[in-house]
Amino acid sequence: MKSAVVLLSGGLDSAVTLALAQAEGFEAHALSFQYGQRHGVEVAAAKRIAQSRGACEHQIAQIDLRLFGGSALTDDIPVPQQRAADEIGRGCGIPVTYVPARNTIFLSYALAWAEVIPARDIFIGVNVVDYSDYPDCRPEFLRRFEMLAAVATKAGVEGAHIRIQAPLLQLSKAEIIRKGMELGVDFSLTHSCYAPTANGLACGLCDSCQLRLRGFQEAGLVDPIAYAPR
Amino acid sequence: MKSAVVLLSGGLDSAVTLALAQAEGFEAHALSFQYGQRHGVEVAAAKRIAQSRGACEHQIAQIDLRLFGGSALTDDIPVPQQRAADEIGRGCGIPVTYVPARNTIFLSYALAWAEVIPARDIFIGVNVVDYSDYPDCRPEFLRRFEMLAAVATKAGVEGAHIRIQAPLLQLSKAEIIRKGMELGVDFSLTHSCYAPTANGLACGLCDSCQLRLRGFQEAGLVDPIAYAPR
Repeated sequence: MKSAVVLLSGGLDSAVTLALAQAEGFEAHALSFQYGQRHGVEVAAAKRIAQSRGACEHQIAQIDLRLFGGSALTDDIPVPQQRAADEIGRGCGIPVTYVPARNTIFLSYALAWAEVIPARDIFIGVNVVDYSDYPDCRPEFLRRFEMLAAVATKAGVEGAHIRIQAPLLQLSKAEIIRKGMELGVDFSLTHSCYAPTANGLACGLCDSCQLRLRGFQEAGLVDPIAYAPR
Repeated sequence: MKSAVVLLSGGLDSAVTLALAQAEGFEAHALSFQYGQRHGVEVAAAKRIAQSRGACEHQIAQIDLRLFGGSALTDDIPVPQQRAADEIGRGCGIPVTYVPARNTIFLSYALAWAEVIPARDIFIGVNVVDYSDYPDCRPEFLRRFEMLAAVATKAGVEGAHIRIQAPLLQLSKAEIIRKGMELGVDFSLTHSCYAPTANGLACGLCDSCQLRLRGFQEAGLVDPIAYAPR
């Protein structure tokens, strides 16, 4: 059976990505990061998802991005709430929730693990429709990482083609949710909120919650997770 | 004053790289990694070097490459000793001391930090003369990482040119040592051995020790560090 490394954040997108990798016949080696997020809720969600989907292995790498700072997700910068719909996503500049070089670091770890397994495919749940403001979610970034991978590893220089697979890249949030439903993803296990309450409830107000809620609405479905009461 | 991130391993090459960055007028932000090396001796050497050279800042990132394994430097695979001179270096395949995707991970962290500082230059002490067997020490790897950096970060997409500088790339070990002497690098603070003794002495037998000793010999100089008695 062919193997793939699947980056698993605990969010909705990466859960669907995992399901898609498995649907393509890959044995999934899930990889999550504890990176000084304000909340460990994400990693707990990733664990539940990996287990529920029958990932053959799940590694959680401890990486300390707080060392450098520079993001609302690792620093004491406030997470924006209740931004207008047209401010979220396309063309309004890179948001404060951007973590410097995060996906570059995540893919580098995935590449290291892929080399050891060995796996030739790395799946990442990035998406250009809702997140075009993050530079490291764009197609050109993925293309160049793949070009790097071809010369960065033993497998690459020996001729293996290491593929960076981003099956959600051109899908809307509603399409991602529908695809997940078809593949039996249990969305109640996923966590998307940037600023959860102390007991782990999603705020419903940050960009990530708003995109998620809008996606379920557009898909004509009900989001099964609990939100903090207003 | 312009800033640069300098990858500092504690070895001879990265100490000279730091000195070269400073000689070019950069304020040096040194970055080291504790990555499940068998020995913490390297990080201790990096600390001494950063202090001795007056780096304006020195960060040590804890990263757990043991998670994936696959290298004599992170696993229980024995480090080769007393290999014939012509087995070390050029054209004899990738050695077991290769750590999967290591320089990709190191440069990704450097890129994250460069974005926050902000710095536009990242210095790395790789060298193609003595280490051509490691894929991630080759010019094409560095060129592609630079291409990636241009699209991977906020600074990059906003037009900043992030440079990966590898000033030792085409130098022999003897030339690196001579350059370090000119710049006043204190080589007694550096550590190169892959398999030091329990009290931190260099073995004198691994590839790295042999390359170092040969370099001092060719430079007509005496290596100031202590070696384990045979």
